[in-house]
Amino acid sequence: MQETSFAKTKTEPATAATNVRIYFDNAATTALDKEVLEAMMPYLTEHFGNPSSIYSYGRETRLAVENARKSVAKNLGTKPANIFFTSGGTESNNTAIAASLRDLGCTHIITSPIEHHAVLHTVEHYGHAANVSYSFVELKDDGQVSLENLDEQLAEQTTSGKKCLVSLMHANNEIGVLLPIKKVGELCKKYGAIFHSDCVQTVGHYPMSLSELPVHFISAASHKFHGPKGVGILYVSDEVNIKPFIFGGGQERNMRAGTENVYGIVGFAKALEIALRDYEKTSAYISELKAYMTEQLQKNIGGVSFNCGPNSLYTVLSVCFPKTAKAEFLLMSLDMNNICVSGGSACSSGADAGSHVMKALHKTDDHVTVRFSFSKHNTKEEVDKVVEKLKELI
Amino acid sequence: MQETSFAKTKTEPATAATNVRIYFDNAATTALDKEVLEAMMPYLTEHFGNPSSIYSYGRETRLAVENARKSVAKNLGTKPANIFFTSGGTESNNTAIAASLRDLGCTHIITSPIEHHAVLHTVEHYGHAANVSYSFVELKDDGQVSLENLDEQLAEQTTSGKKCLVSLMHANNEIGVLLPIKKVGELCKKYGAIFHSDCVQTVGHYPMSLSELPVHFISAASHKFHGPKGVGILYVSDEVNIKPFIFGGGQERNMRAGTENVYGIVGFAKALEIALRDYEKTSAYISELKAYMTEQLQKNIGGVSFNCGPNSLYTVLSVCFPKTAKAEFLLMSLDMNNICVSGGSACSSGADAGSHVMKALHKTDDHVTVRFSFSKHNTKEEVDKVVEKLKELI
Repeated sequence: MQETSFAKTKTEPATAATNVRIYFDNAATTALDKEVLEAMMPYLTEHFGNPSSIYSYGRETRLAVENARKSVAKNLGTKPANIFFTSGGTESNNTAIAASLRDLGCTHIITSPIEHHAVLHTVEHYGHAANVSYSFVELKDDGQVSLENLDEQLAEQTTSGKKCLVSLMHANNEIGVLLPIKKVGELCKKYGAIFHSDCVQTVGHYPMSLSELPVHFISAASHKFHGPKGVGILYVSDEVNIKPFIFGGGQERNMRAGTENVYGIVGFAKALEIALRDYEKTSAYISELKAYMTEQLQKNIGGVSFNCGPNSLYTVLSVCFPKTAKAEFLLMSLDMNNICVSGGSACSSGADAGSHVMKALHKTDDHVTVRFSFSKHNTKEEVDKVVEKLKELI
Repeated sequence: MQETSFAKTKTEPATAATNVRIYFDNAATTALDKEVLEAMMPYLTEHFGNPSSIYSYGRETRLAVENARKSVAKNLGTKPANIFFTSGGTESNNTAIAASLRDLGCTHIITSPIEHHAVLHTVEHYGHAANVSYSFVELKDDGQVSLENLDEQLAEQTTSGKKCLVSLMHANNEIGVLLPIKKVGELCKKYGAIFHSDCVQTVGHYPMSLSELPVHFISAASHKFHGPKGVGILYVSDEVNIKPFIFGGGQERNMRAGTENVYGIVGFAKALEIALRDYEKTSAYISELKAYMTEQLQKNIGGVSFNCGPNSLYTVLSVCFPKTAKAEFLLMSLDMNNICVSGGSACSSGADAGSHVMKALHKTDDHVTVRFSFSKHNTKEEVDKVVEKLKELI
């Protein structure tokens, strides 16, 4: 393993590295890449025109948006016409779910209890409508979806005359478990179900060829792969035809109204371009970091166990520490030592209700769970420091 | 009038002024202020933490978001609890309209045919539901709402047992006509109606004291007053209690899910702060520019008339030129001369269907309408150049 982070030599973060803080919460959000910010800057300064304006100055920003769409489509193995820019992963998830019920005739939703709240709360909201129902697919102990149970549920619902929407995330944001997305898509196809996958943790972290995947909708957000916050995409396959979620002007070919967040869109495309350009190197680097931390924790902390099996995100290491009087304050203690990690996801941390993922997997009772999530900016030295600190704190 | 623009001495745009382009389309979008970009930069670089993270690094960005909310609330004369950040004016409008029907029991919408499409298309969408109806208020020739007719319609609908949502924009984006927002609010109050006002053209351009206005919802977008694109607010008064439009994480006190666009939010607040700090000077400067252009057009172009009466935005000058063979290509000719102006609004220009506002006001037949809209960055010299060019082109 290299001694300095891959990132520091190749794609620096847009900020000078701090000597103090250790940021191991990259599944929550990531630092904007310097290269990405540079790509955005012209649209934060001289190129401010409204892309919907018909004069040539507006066409400059229109071109930037359309070039971004082309770049994103190419990098995800699909056509520009299938990519719609949104304000983020949450809006994309909401759009896919609402449209499946409203425009595609779905009357039953099959999802899982460990989805991100952007899916779970949306399903709960729409699933309480008079003509809609929803159910959870069975999960194995490690969070993997039981494909047998999914098959059974799809068969049962379809036989009873319901059209299903299956919404299952490509990778869980807390424990990192990966979905066999192709197999799930094929099952959905078999039953004529609509398939949506929240890919917020995988787009920009894995190569994808969407045109070859049997999926109708995927969602992504660029701040998870060193792009800007406030911008996401919804991929909509050619097989479905939906109406907008947000009504108004004719932006995004009448699919998403509102003046385009031009610099955000440009930043999304640039971040994805960099992420996939450097994928081999970055993923190898981060995978090694995760393996190293796993090893160091096993060596140094008694009673430690892991929530991620072999089939999980290379970016996320979810660790169960034995619950002791000291460990109860582990997150707080790490924070006081300038180590940024997460208990559950960032989005649900405010709720202070514990992790719904851990609850669903019955892992809350005798453990303290910490999610360490890495980026190309992290180093082996940081892992050493964190493990050293954990030894003190447990 | 000063010889150089007020802006060039006080608050420069974040770009060097070009010698060629004349940008008279500030109602479509505006240049980001240098001061605003400076306020945003720390959140595009070192402060990238997720505001929902519980550790102190996340709390830095949480604080930035909450300070922005406080600043916006103070500048709009309301409490922070009434301000919700969204992805823009369009999302805010959608949220207010959808929530009024879903959560507040409204079953009839009264709006006008000259609303922005962000309201009009949203009303059309939800107004086609089984239990909802909508109607248009009568307009005077100059686009002003007939308060008598609004009163009649409210009386009629309320008597027949319907609860009304009134959605009327504070200022029309194409012709600039202003709504007597207080009077409309009082009428709504009289009938127990919910009142939403799209204030996208007025927030940042007029001082407001929302706590004193009888309005339940207002929408705004910062890119209309030299702030960033991709961010807006929805003001929700204490009198109403609504559910989210976008479901997911607990952001915006459970009212708007999705990782916060931190730099956008910071930029919104800064842009509003500057706009209202400099209001007296800026509005006087732009008003004079509009008056000067009006005068010059009257003096130099035969048969010219204006769509904005005295009660209209100081930023917008909507002009009717006599329709001649040459004038038909006026927008294109102005564009070829690097003069950015608009036929209708930017958002509907892509549709190529002409202006729905001009159609509703029966002004499409024998005129070519051009909207000139000004900012603090424009100058008297630019007006002279444009009038000179118009003389050639008509």
